Amino acid sequence: METETRWLNAEQQVAWRAYLLGTARLMAKLDEDLRRFGIGINDYEILVRLSEAPDRRLRMADLADRLHQSRSRLTHTVGRLEAGDLVRRTSCTSDKRGVWAELTEAGFGLLEQAAPYHVDGVRENLVDLATQEDFAAVGRVFDSVSEHIGQR
Amino acid sequence: METETRWLNAEQQVAWRAYLLGTARLMAKLDEDLRRFGIGINDYEILVRLSEAPDRRLRMADLADRLHQSRSRLTHTVGRLEAGDLVRRTSCTSDKRGVWAELTEAGFGLLEQAAPYHVDGVRENLVDLATQEDFAAVGRVFDSVSEHIGQR
Repeated sequence: METETRWLNAEQQVAWRAYLLGTARLMAKLDEDLRRFGIGINDYEILVRLSEAPDRRLRMADLADRLHQSRSRLTHTVGRLEAGDLVRRTSCTSDKRGVWAELTEAGFGLLEQAAPYHVDGVRENLVDLATQEDFAAVGRVFDSVSEHIGQR
Repeated sequence: METETRWLNAEQQVAWRAYLLGTARLMAKLDEDLRRFGIGINDYEILVRLSEAPDRRLRMADLADRLHQSRSRLTHTVGRLEAGDLVRRTSCTSDKRGVWAELTEAGFGLLEQAAPYHVDGVRENLVDLATQEDFAAVGRVFDSVSEHIGQR
């Protein structure tokens, strides 16, 4: 016996499409807005994660987990950020657990400049458009998603 | 006088990060799941949009708008889909308004195979994890986002 496909109902379908399109537009907008600082949204998230870590550095593997990115994509991006002197990669001979990415002073300085502008964009194009309750619901839903799917 | 930055409060910050990480994990999961059909989530969305259009075809510009993708990225992806005989590009001499993308029979067949599997993944990793109210809130929020940002 074949299992019947449980298609989305009309309401779910509308919400799912709104999420897909809204996310595509939001990410493109935040990305474009950061271009004046010479970085994109993906670069920005890397700089933020490093800025929050002890000594402003993380193992590449930990950074990949926190951003849920493939190692190959992250290696590529961090290489670009390193060429721009925003991040530096180090490896310690006594530490066999891999390569670290570390935020440079220039990287920290850029983040300080970009952050207020970026946060304005997140507010204007997302947070301020939603009621407090609806935005809390978004948080709950994607927290469940994160937990359900887990790390790579 | 400098404008004070309106940082996100703790609750907003948590919801925003949950959305970013949850979305990254969800998209990676749906993408991986579709690899057994030889396509990714981005390809899938293109095939769906074409399948729903009259004569299963859309102008490239319209397709780009619906997916909120840059023309250059879409051209690249559609080129790949065309090489796999899932989509074909046509241009009509009497129509100066550009190139059309059209779903092939093979593309339609692949979509029919992949759709039940993909919908299961959307349910399991998103829709069924949320209450009906919370998922409706997600729809409302990203509908506002789409409308606010608008087309490229």
